Amino acid sequence: MYQSVPVKVTVPLTAGMKGIRRYILSLDNHVNIMEALAAFCKEKEIFTGKVSGIGAICSATFRFLDPATKTYVDKTFEEQMEITNLTGNISCKDNKPYLHVHITASRRDYSCIGGHLLEARVNGACELYVEDYYLTYAGRRPDEETGLNLYKFQTL
Amino acid sequence: MYQSVPVKVTVPLTAGMKGIRRYILSLDNHVNIMEALAAFCKEKEIFTGKVSGIGAICSATFRFLDPATKTYVDKTFEEQMEITNLTGNISCKDNKPYLHVHITASRRDYSCIGGHLLEARVNGACELYVEDYYLTYAGRRPDEETGLNLYKFQTL
Amino acid sequence: MYQSVPVKVTVPLTAGMKGIRRYILSLDNHVNIMEALAAFCKEKEIFTGKVSGIGAICSATFRFLDPATKTYVDKTFEEQMEITNLTGNISCKDNKPYLHVHITASRRDYSCIGGHLLEARVNGACELYVEDYYLTYAGRRPDEETGLNLYKFQTL
Repeated sequence: MYQSVPVKVTVPLTAGMKGIRRYILSLDNHVNIMEALAAFCKEKEIFTGKVSGIGAICSATFRFLDPATKTYVDKTFEEQMEITNLTGNISCKDNKPYLHVHITASRRDYSCIGGHLLEARVNGACELYVEDYYLTYAGRRPDEETGLNLYKFQTL
Repeated sequence: MYQSVPVKVTVPLTAGMKGIRRYILSLDNHVNIMEALAAFCKEKEIFTGKVSGIGAICSATFRFLDPATKTYVDKTFEEQMEITNLTGNISCKDNKPYLHVHITASRRDYSCIGGHLLEARVNGACELYVEDYYLTYAGRRPDEETGLNLYKFQTL
Repeated sequence: MYQSVPVKVTVPLTAGMKGIRRYILSLDNHVNIMEALAAFCKEKEIFTGKVSGIGAICSATFRFLDPATKTYVDKTFEEQMEITNLTGNISCKDNKPYLHVHITASRRDYSCIGGHLLEARVNGACELYVEDYYLTYAGRRPDEETGLNLYKFQTL
């Protein structure tokens, strides 16, 4: 589903770079990005971190939330697009990695669409960077006002 | 106005990770992003660094500069949008943190607008990463040709 | 063609931060971004890394690849735009730095276009961050299915 390489440090992690692990992540063609990212975070036990990158996809489903009405509108675009940017974060909810990812995507006419990503299918390459802040804890708590799961930080 | 958590390292900053401090930053609902970022940088004394992230907003004011005429055109969009990406840098001007931030935002129809950010109001969540390069100095100097405040680096 | 400043660490690189070098990079006005980035990577001998940032340009050429037909469609936009986000990676191909860069750009009406970047000309400022993962090796291999040069990781 993906290939990854830890960003190597010669000094062992216990000596120099404690607190952060970095990965270059190449997703396999045809996978669902959110599923692959969730599988990667589960395998590497990443509960607090950051993800960014670029890629190409043949479909994407976005969720638009209107905070006034607290209604979700999901829409799927089925067409070849470039991910001009993927930006997201990883936190911990119910003892599992919780992904919050937004993308910007350019269409055949180069115009951009984007939003809160529910799922997207790789068609071509998808090249990401993941940072695991393994000594930092960012949890989630439901927030009544917004209807969202907001960050709940905790100093370890 | 915001919550933040330093990205923890077990080895004290004086030992392992000298030169960089990282923060996960969660802005409060309804705040002005540029004001909150400026307040955060002031509080943490960040004069050279980087900011990135995602969020949701109900308004954004962009500035378009035409270098040919050196005229600014500012426009405010008052509607619910997702920030699909926020990218910016922090430098030092007149002994204060100086923010240069661009965003891409997706509208209700998922199309994207964006530009140089003057201000934006959080409506929902706004989740950012800030990196403080506290041993590096990036200042600003007015540049006649472009009419911009360009970087002025200095080796400490 | 550019100014850059290494992100300083007091502990020498051999002690604390082995594995990563960071640069703040300010491109000169009127340069071609891809040429300047390639020259920078060559000068600093960066073969595996990451680039991100913002800027302003007066032209950009995007490449759209349709994987179904493996045809490329290149299009140049000649107008003043803000780069709302530039995201890319650096790897090694034929013993040279190989850049893969996508941008999102906002036009005079603030609408966004973007894609896989072939070239773009700075008009104003272009402020980037480059991370050099100098102990990690990310190569490239031609992939028949996609017609792309995909990542080929190798543990050093």
